[in-house]
Amino acid sequence: MPQRYSEDDIIARIFAPIAGAAALGLKDDAALLAPESVQLVVTTDMIVAGVHFFADDAPALIAKKALRVNLSDLAAKGAEPIGFLLGLALPEDWTNDWLDAFAAGLAEDARAYRAPLIGGDTGATPGPLTISITALGRAPRFVPRSGAKPGDAIFVSGPIGDAALGLAVRRDAALAARLSAGARDYLIGRYLLPQPRLDLAPWLAANASAAMDISDGLAGDLAKLCRASSVSAIVDLASVPLSDATREAIAIDPALFERAITGGDDYEILIACGSGAALPAPACRIGEIVAGNAPPSFLDAQGKPVFFKKLSFQHF
Amino acid sequence: MPQRYSEDDIIARIFAPIAGAAALGLKDDAALLAPESVQLVVTTDMIVAGVHFFADDAPALIAKKALRVNLSDLAAKGAEPIGFLLGLALPEDWTNDWLDAFAAGLAEDARAYRAPLIGGDTGATPGPLTISITALGRAPRFVPRSGAKPGDAIFVSGPIGDAALGLAVRRDAALAARLSAGARDYLIGRYLLPQPRLDLAPWLAANASAAMDISDGLAGDLAKLCRASSVSAIVDLASVPLSDATREAIAIDPALFERAITGGDDYEILIACGSGAALPAPACRIGEIVAGNAPPSFLDAQGKPVFFKKLSFQHF
Repeated sequence: MPQRYSEDDIIARIFAPIAGAAALGLKDDAALLAPESVQLVVTTDMIVAGVHFFADDAPALIAKKALRVNLSDLAAKGAEPIGFLLGLALPEDWTNDWLDAFAAGLAEDARAYRAPLIGGDTGATPGPLTISITALGRAPRFVPRSGAKPGDAIFVSGPIGDAALGLAVRRDAALAARLSAGARDYLIGRYLLPQPRLDLAPWLAANASAAMDISDGLAGDLAKLCRASSVSAIVDLASVPLSDATREAIAIDPALFERAITGGDDYEILIACGSGAALPAPACRIGEIVAGNAPPSFLDAQGKPVFFKKLSFQHF
Repeated sequence: MPQRYSEDDIIARIFAPIAGAAALGLKDDAALLAPESVQLVVTTDMIVAGVHFFADDAPALIAKKALRVNLSDLAAKGAEPIGFLLGLALPEDWTNDWLDAFAAGLAEDARAYRAPLIGGDTGATPGPLTISITALGRAPRFVPRSGAKPGDAIFVSGPIGDAALGLAVRRDAALAARLSAGARDYLIGRYLLPQPRLDLAPWLAANASAAMDISDGLAGDLAKLCRASSVSAIVDLASVPLSDATREAIAIDPALFERAITGGDDYEILIACGSGAALPAPACRIGEIVAGNAPPSFLDAQGKPVFFKKLSFQHF
């Protein structure tokens, strides 16, 4: 076993350099936030090796994914980041090199997204690496899931299904072999590294009736948004934006279309807004909110309803 | 395998009833907090089966411990709870009965401590049960670790070592057999169920120079407080309050005294405050902050320094 940092070293040498002012140098038990004249938004997501990522993924990418899935929630609520708290349970075989790379990735994103580390808790686990991040943000107006109204347009902020197909490519060597190298790398990259759409947060705070990030699949997440808003929806599947790589994969195996629409990890934003609203590309209008409590309808290019076996990813 | 809740059921049926207003019925991706005219305090702690508790501990007690270790951090910072976010990674063999009991324990404490659930994330793990809680609180004044000044009195809020000896009793059947049933039950209870000292929070916010909760052992945590404050300390070991049960255990095995002073999980509060300050029992004055950068000195009844093999619990 190579020599490893002590628990105190981990805090002082690895994480303190990432910390923001509110963290008080990570020398305290809690973070201190100044009072805000805007709305404070808090969200938490936990990711586990073997469930949400592969244990041998690059540590910097694991760190960035753990942070970005939380920043994606802030973005969907119209919020910009204030900072985040990190809960880290390290497996028995962790090494300093691994932790250095993890912290470097985290630091890079903390800077890029202006989301400093403001606290945390590091410990050991006899199980797989487990990362729990709680992110705090400020929003001029909190965009709820529950605000969609009949007549609203439904937008998604960018291409759907890339990450789900990226995961499929990682699991299915035969599929990977049939894809072009460019498509393969793009899809895997979209699975490994979500792009939180913080650029849209101010627009959402000003304009959206309802929004959520698409983490468990477009079809299932739209059903959730509709239930929270007591409305239904009609989606024109031909309008759902797909990347060239996803189109290439679907051309090889048409069943992957359903995977794209119902698979998780997109981290694009699902938006309901007034029908006159316009969002810049790559956002796309994909349908309309309608009255009623029926589950959303998904229509093909001929206007016929399409039924999916399973609307979204469920852990249980 | 008995039938189990779906992921959606867990949120809607198990956790939504515990949720506070900020949680928006747990139907959203993030919680919304109103702006505060006081200081906002945030803390996170992650506990793992086999590390911080036994996997077969009563689920209600596991839930309460996970919440209380966070509330203890709030108390030490002079804060009262606003609410908490729950990250829950369930092991493969979880059952509905287990989760019902876990949620019942959590609900009981959420009510008792006025700390509603305001958000969370539930998922699966191939490893041990892992619980990450982030608690938010409000404080009229944040009490830092770093404010201790030479001349300050050092207090602890109550008996030290009970939980460390409770753990020793659970691990050592011979020791357990030699203790009275009352002492055994008391010590194990103090290990299983910390008592966050939220009753002291207003006093601390008004009076303490520095404070922290004692989670990794009195000796090591005092060393941390001194380092954060750039001071040293002298502790009169004979003044450290010990419960009757801990005295009984130490009479059986004198080596347990060191375990009591350096073992973790007390969740009492270590306080530095002006030398004229008075704290009601069971709080006890145990020493004094002095100038310098030396590690704290621990003196026995004859005024001779006592050296401990290891100041506190470390995961690594």
